[in-house]
Amino acid sequence: MEMNTKRFLVRPGDTVSLADHDPAETGGLTKKEAKEALTQLRLELNELQELLYASEEHALLIVLQGMDTSGKDGVIKHVITAFNPQGCQVTGFKVPTSEELAHDFLWRVHRAVPRRGMVGIFNRSHYEDVVVVRVEGLAAEKVWRKRYGMINDFERLLAGNNVVIRKFFLHISKEEQRDRLQDRLKNKRDHWKFRVGDLKARARWDDYMAAYEEALSRCSLEEAPWYIIPADKKWYRNLVISQILAETLRSLDMKWPALEPGAEGIQII
Amino acid sequence: MEMNTKRFLVRPGDTVSLADHDPAETGGLTKKEAKEALTQLRLELNELQELLYASEEHALLIVLQGMDTSGKDGVIKHVITAFNPQGCQVTGFKVPTSEELAHDFLWRVHRAVPRRGMVGIFNRSHYEDVVVVRVEGLAAEKVWRKRYGMINDFERLLAGNNVVIRKFFLHISKEEQRDRLQDRLKNKRDHWKFRVGDLKARARWDDYMAAYEEALSRCSLEEAPWYIIPADKKWYRNLVISQILAETLRSLDMKWPALEPGAEGIQII
Repeated sequence: MEMNTKRFLVRPGDTVSLADHDPAETGGLTKKEAKEALTQLRLELNELQELLYASEEHALLIVLQGMDTSGKDGVIKHVITAFNPQGCQVTGFKVPTSEELAHDFLWRVHRAVPRRGMVGIFNRSHYEDVVVVRVEGLAAEKVWRKRYGMINDFERLLAGNNVVIRKFFLHISKEEQRDRLQDRLKNKRDHWKFRVGDLKARARWDDYMAAYEEALSRCSLEEAPWYIIPADKKWYRNLVISQILAETLRSLDMKWPALEPGAEGIQII
Repeated sequence: MEMNTKRFLVRPGDTVSLADHDPAETGGLTKKEAKEALTQLRLELNELQELLYASEEHALLIVLQGMDTSGKDGVIKHVITAFNPQGCQVTGFKVPTSEELAHDFLWRVHRAVPRRGMVGIFNRSHYEDVVVVRVEGLAAEKVWRKRYGMINDFERLLAGNNVVIRKFFLHISKEEQRDRLQDRLKNKRDHWKFRVGDLKARARWDDYMAAYEEALSRCSLEEAPWYIIPADKKWYRNLVISQILAETLRSLDMKWPALEPGAEGIQII
């Protein structure tokens, strides 16, 4: 039961209007069907990731972006856990340190790129440098506007060196965010996730959507595509991302490495 | 059904003789019982690790050492997967790079120490600098002999700064290693794990045991203890380590952080 994931893809050259994408979409699936499919995909992802690790020819870089509560952490918890932690590194990009600020905006990002054999997950990324930086006015327009091209060049560099890039925009509705934030306030166990400052971004929702639309439109490359993931239903979000990752890894045509020359027929004593 | 894990502990001051530790021990448990207990412990470990992550007061550093095939990767696959990959970082220490060799032997290790809130797993560690380095004669005795004290000082520094350290020596028999190496040669899927060079270490088994005995004897601290884990049975190895980790995390008396001041009673609009 495989869905067609092409419709979540932002084709290079497309102009994205997020209003045309339903965040509550479920592709006609029930939660139960999606969970069963996810269980299967997780097994396959585990297998494929071991092969990626063993063959050491490609790295996989997964970029997760989205508003607060859109499910970046949830994807890590429910999808990325399919992978062996030894072959995985999650990097969260927070407010840059003073050392990071003393470099170009891609410096800290480049350092976090996974090496061949590894899966790297960016929980937020260099896209904050054309989203939050733009909306909150943290840099002049002439500064952030140049960055789309720089990002594309950077991602082409990576892709041209065996880093397979998949970027996921977790698309939730403003109403869904309200409910999720309210839940964080209600549940003692989730209090640590709530930051009063997050409400500032919520208050500028439309500006954020506009900033994302431009980033998605300008920076979806053949070799480093963006996907817009319906994320109001967590189970559908997890399924769609898992399937795209499985398709991506399958397409690499990886092989288990052969026995080291000279090891044939050895009897261990 | 909790076992007493104290008997795996190397008490500070103990002189370890590995011959006194049965690598095939199973504590009278069946595989089925152990697997059921592991399933429960994994759920608890997941919960405790989220609390560690949320409360950001302690880091947990897990050191895995042992001969080839002793199960360092297996522990990561079957125990560490209980943790959320976002709160976990696995570092494998391989042959040092030329940059690493240009520093003291703990430099690269210190950089890999997990920050507060995180679990760090060392797949091999600075203990190679008193084990492989000693056995293979990679440094003079007067160089590696000084290192026991340096390691103890270093680990006390970490422990004194909220890094909780647990060190596991995965103890397998030479016969079990033979079978596991032979399996790697047999199964195409595992060919990539076989290195002819590993046989060199096997040939010097007794020297390695002597080097481990000295490291375990000299470097088990109250605040950074070594455990000798019977590792011939993978399911028992996994259970014992899981239980020690659960006991460790429980003992930290962590609390879910309170709501940020000013957030009480907010209605999200």
